[in-house]
Amino acid sequence: MRVLICPDKFAGTLSAPAVARALSEGWRSAVPGDQVVTRPLSDGGPGFVAVLSFLGTSFDVPTVDPLGRPVTGSVVLAGDTAYVESAQACGLHLLASSERDPLGATSYGLGILVAHAVEAGARRVVIGLGGSATNDGGAGMLAALGAAPVDEAGYALPYGGAALTAVAGLSGVPRLRPVDLVAATDVDNPLTGLYGAANVYGPQKGASRADVLLLDGALARWASVLERLATCPPGLADLLGAGAAGGLGAAILALGGRCESGIGLVTRLIGLDAALDEADLVITGEGSFDHQSLRGKVVAGVAGGARDRGLPCLVVAGRVSTGRREAAAAGVTEALALADRFGLDRAMADPATCLRELSAHLATQWSR
Amino acid sequence: MRVLICPDKFAGTLSAPAVARALSEGWRSAVPGDQVVTRPLSDGGPGFVAVLSFLGTSFDVPTVDPLGRPVTGSVVLAGDTAYVESAQACGLHLLASSERDPLGATSYGLGILVAHAVEAGARRVVIGLGGSATNDGGAGMLAALGAAPVDEAGYALPYGGAALTAVAGLSGVPRLRPVDLVAATDVDNPLTGLYGAANVYGPQKGASRADVLLLDGALARWASVLERLATCPPGLADLLGAGAAGGLGAAILALGGRCESGIGLVTRLIGLDAALDEADLVITGEGSFDHQSLRGKVVAGVAGGARDRGLPCLVVAGRVSTGRREAAAAGVTEALALADRFGLDRAMADPATCLRELSAHLATQWSR
Repeated sequence: MRVLICPDKFAGTLSAPAVARALSEGWRSAVPGDQVVTRPLSDGGPGFVAVLSFLGTSFDVPTVDPLGRPVTGSVVLAGDTAYVESAQACGLHLLASSERDPLGATSYGLGILVAHAVEAGARRVVIGLGGSATNDGGAGMLAALGAAPVDEAGYALPYGGAALTAVAGLSGVPRLRPVDLVAATDVDNPLTGLYGAANVYGPQKGASRADVLLLDGALARWASVLERLATCPPGLADLLGAGAAGGLGAAILALGGRCESGIGLVTRLIGLDAALDEADLVITGEGSFDHQSLRGKVVAGVAGGARDRGLPCLVVAGRVSTGRREAAAAGVTEALALADRFGLDRAMADPATCLRELSAHLATQWSR
Repeated sequence: MRVLICPDKFAGTLSAPAVARALSEGWRSAVPGDQVVTRPLSDGGPGFVAVLSFLGTSFDVPTVDPLGRPVTGSVVLAGDTAYVESAQACGLHLLASSERDPLGATSYGLGILVAHAVEAGARRVVIGLGGSATNDGGAGMLAALGAAPVDEAGYALPYGGAALTAVAGLSGVPRLRPVDLVAATDVDNPLTGLYGAANVYGPQKGASRADVLLLDGALARWASVLERLATCPPGLADLLGAGAAGGLGAAILALGGRCESGIGLVTRLIGLDAALDEADLVITGEGSFDHQSLRGKVVAGVAGGARDRGLPCLVVAGRVSTGRREAAAAGVTEALALADRFGLDRAMADPATCLRELSAHLATQWSR
């Protein structure tokens, strides 16, 4: 039997490759003869670089987190393309709940990662977006690249989206060798307005209603400054993806970059379509399998691909809260929760062991 | 009391402006003193042009449907910007179920609408995408603009996506005066692959699994031809929105256009944010209020905006099949189904009268 294991990350506990590894080990411990293929997934958010590290060589880069504290990121270099991940520098998971600061959080650390990728010789830098704590429209990233936001008098502004209420220009032109920038994301929101970065994603980053209004106005002002860059397309604030990762999408578009579907890019690079064609059974999963999952593309996409091929598709998750009928319609044969089987405490404390045990159990049930 | 009425269309029965009108009439018949503001919505799909017609002057254009039969579309001209709607020429609603033809359906009629918009003097043409029956990557639209897809020998190919398996070039350069093209859509899929136009939207247009594979390959080949256009950005097939409306997004991007959020653009043009700020109660709705609605942006966006402002938000729909808890979390105070209240037959046969009666009833309950 050919088993395809292609989970998303378990947010907060395990990376997607670690989930895939645990599921694979469990299955093989029970039925050693089966052919098990792992293809961990990412849509551009946390885990993007880990999932793509098989493509080439990786190197570590010292950078800073959303509050300016030291943190280590990594760059994957494959041929002339580099892959970096905004969440490694801007991620919400880098902050404790009490540290959330949507007004002041900066994407400066991502600029450091991009600069290192270019220094390493990349002609194309693919930047995974998602899971960010920032709402600064990529102003920090531009500052790290030599184009800091400045006020009317020409003084550099402090970090964060709120300061952009006073932005009047840039301190210089971004220092980037000719390089092709690609934002990998499945967030298609515009930068501003009712569907913009601040309105839609601000609250989960800790923004109050007043913060949202402030940030939305600041981002609109920031967009008018970015539009003066020669590389910036017209109508920047309204472009699909401009509002991804607190407006990092807009900064990348303003630098002449483009927005690609993150999960589309990842599935193409890892060959998921062909792997589905060759599988007899598919296992996917994520930390919390809920209504949101069926709205998303990662688990829902795998389940849809399995359904189209008539393959059974098992979802393994920390918690499951979808309706069975709804999940079945999306292509999910069975959804299993670690919390139900092992208790929430154990599932959170040692998810890898739980996944191995559950996978071994599934193998005895499903393998011929 | 200030009542804001901002519904989506009731697909198959009433346009968004007609829904808004019926709800407004019903409310005012019961409580004449209330201030009722209507702001019908669209995300770029069917109804886009009707919702924006207040912006300027409209004129009718004779064009063709996805099977090449005569149909009338309309263009809204406001200053130097024209608004057209792909669904008026490519819409799935123009075909009976038995007529669905994802392999052969053409977007030719949209090219006619765009040409007329440019002829009328527009310097910017905003094309609403969504609800299409076509999967031809905009090949028909390009043919109508003078750049038909041709085979190796230089002969023009027949209409439809399937023929693009043999595409080798274009018959000429698209004849478009210098004009700024904008695709208004909230479909962010790439053109090809597991998340591409054929895989995700092909089945609902009538494509079998074999058709999907054929169309996906044809669109990949078509993208490589489009990329030879001087105006085409690199990596066309992977761009966010390239897969909108059966790949019309890709054709618009290849012509140097851009993809904007359709609902973002509409809400900005109609001033929805400010209208929400001034409302005491919001009524929205759509034909079927289901899980899909809470994944979408139109009704979910209104409900979220109401929730953020602490406003009650009523959803009126033909049918309702969401869970109450889930809908409440999205900001919906109460969801009311015409089918429950008036019976499915009457709700389908005379939705406007049902909406008026229901709205009058709601006014007596909710108005102070």
